[in-house]
Amino acid sequence: MTNPVLVEVLRGAIVESAHRGAIAVFDADGKSVWEIGDTARPVFPRSAVKAIQALPLVESGAADAYGFGNRELALACASHSGQPEHVELARSMLAKAGLDETALECGAHWPSHDATIALARAGEVPNALHNNCSGKHSGFLCTCVHVGVAHKGYVNAGHAEQEMIRDAMQAVTGAAHGADERATDGCSIPTYAVPLRSFALGFARMVTTTGFGPERAKAAKRLLSACMAEPFFVAGTGRADVALMQAAPGRIFVKGGAEGVYCAALPELGLGIALKCDDGAGRAAEAMVAAVIAKLLHADETLAAKLIKLANAPIESRIGAKVGALRPTAALN
Amino acid sequence: MTNPVLVEVLRGAIVESAHRGAIAVFDADGKSVWEIGDTARPVFPRSAVKAIQALPLVESGAADAYGFGNRELALACASHSGQPEHVELARSMLAKAGLDETALECGAHWPSHDATIALARAGEVPNALHNNCSGKHSGFLCTCVHVGVAHKGYVNAGHAEQEMIRDAMQAVTGAAHGADERATDGCSIPTYAVPLRSFALGFARMVTTTGFGPERAKAAKRLLSACMAEPFFVAGTGRADVALMQAAPGRIFVKGGAEGVYCAALPELGLGIALKCDDGAGRAAEAMVAAVIAKLLHADETLAAKLIKLANAPIESRIGAKVGALRPTAALN
Repeated sequence: MTNPVLVEVLRGAIVESAHRGAIAVFDADGKSVWEIGDTARPVFPRSAVKAIQALPLVESGAADAYGFGNRELALACASHSGQPEHVELARSMLAKAGLDETALECGAHWPSHDATIALARAGEVPNALHNNCSGKHSGFLCTCVHVGVAHKGYVNAGHAEQEMIRDAMQAVTGAAHGADERATDGCSIPTYAVPLRSFALGFARMVTTTGFGPERAKAAKRLLSACMAEPFFVAGTGRADVALMQAAPGRIFVKGGAEGVYCAALPELGLGIALKCDDGAGRAAEAMVAAVIAKLLHADETLAAKLIKLANAPIESRIGAKVGALRPTAALN
Repeated sequence: MTNPVLVEVLRGAIVESAHRGAIAVFDADGKSVWEIGDTARPVFPRSAVKAIQALPLVESGAADAYGFGNRELALACASHSGQPEHVELARSMLAKAGLDETALECGAHWPSHDATIALARAGEVPNALHNNCSGKHSGFLCTCVHVGVAHKGYVNAGHAEQEMIRDAMQAVTGAAHGADERATDGCSIPTYAVPLRSFALGFARMVTTTGFGPERAKAAKRLLSACMAEPFFVAGTGRADVALMQAAPGRIFVKGGAEGVYCAALPELGLGIALKCDDGAGRAAEAMVAAVIAKLLHADETLAAKLIKLANAPIESRIGAKVGALRPTAALN
């Protein structure tokens, strides 16, 4: 099955590039509300499921034991830009469990463009705290310390931490996460390829807590609420996830992942959304998620305008002139 | 027409993302040697045709008047990484025509990752000389000064410089470059969408000089030879264009462009190649051009191994572990 073109990239009046993809929208009872493209093909969700991966942090009692509020929980669900606020918060989360960045096994990388320039100007180099996943990994480490398992090797499949996460992922999405579906994410933890529709169902469950026990229900609510309350700590300055969640505070949860994945949830509709751009382009995935939310949400004129703007990002020349734009196709109407 | 998947991105053993595209290989007589996908669809060549756009610099006598050698001519055809060597050479080209960076109308942007860090550490910010197109623009400005036209507005359609370039593009590719095909490139000059097969034919002509007058023939030879002799000045440290041209010195000319375009020429076969990845991904275009060259060139084992390695770039985690790879599909065999 060939997925349809969902986003075109215009230069002047001509289509320069095009992005295909698949999108699943489900309710928490497993009803398909809207699907386009092949939503049964296994997809690695990458960072788009960090909120589910953070369930053990809350359910284990670690988040309460260390006094984590919305910012810490948002950072545990984040792919952050490595700005000083992110780095310091990850450091403080680790400190509460008696750890420092040497415990992180995610590796280091230079952060977002602006943060990289600031770091280089200060004569510094990035460490693992600057890794966009350091909040998630700090959450993993805090969970290990709190429940009393040795944290070394916590990124490996088979470690108690990854088994807790796998159990949560399987329970929430309803999809088997076996060795055959497994590969390694950029931050060294396992990532499992399962159908998009399972992630859509999973986020519908996360946002409605349908079928969850009381502990899981409370944890899911806290995590999604924390992300919607503190979107800067989920991403960073200028990022699409922040703009989308700030466009309608408390009404939109979104989380992007590498290789063009998005998961989202709309509390007032009780819907979960999962999508992937076939070619892995983040620019197209951002346009797709904004367009789908604009389609589904009962938006007033102001909100609709904000979402449409995010779905039609301009292409600019190096002098800042608008020379083109992204454009969702009719398939997304 | 839906173009075929030409490159897959594997994570572990699972295909995570996929890139479609079209490729045209032509000889200088206009014979199609190999085509895949829709090679008649108009495509913006972006920076992949800089060697053709540099013809007026040589043909006008400007390159000789200012004493430009291989490095300057390579930089005039370059999308460089903004490393100090590139910046200084562009500055010296402008100085020979009595100009400095204030004459450049390409705009400024932060250069490649490593060059950005070096610049920020030095407490500096980029100027137009760091723009990846500054060598091309310096060539444009030198041409203006040498032939005696006012350089202000040299980036605009209708300016004498852009008309010289348009004439060269039309003559070499055989395709009309009209207002309907025109949009604006990232560096503010016009870019025209014409069929891939026209670019393939154009580069077959550039490398064989078939049908060219003696001045154009000499200019084409000098420009392609300069790029193959000084590939670092066409791109920069670690770039695919450099690796490809260094893999078989004098036997491979390649030039990438934004949004997943490549033009290439193989002197010993007299062939021109043009390709575009549908979605604009540079990683896939690099794999495609390496795979096509491996297919066409009569390569010994060492060269074949180099090309296959470039066509199958690894995907690494943040700790440098190989967790996946790009893989050309059977369509490229």
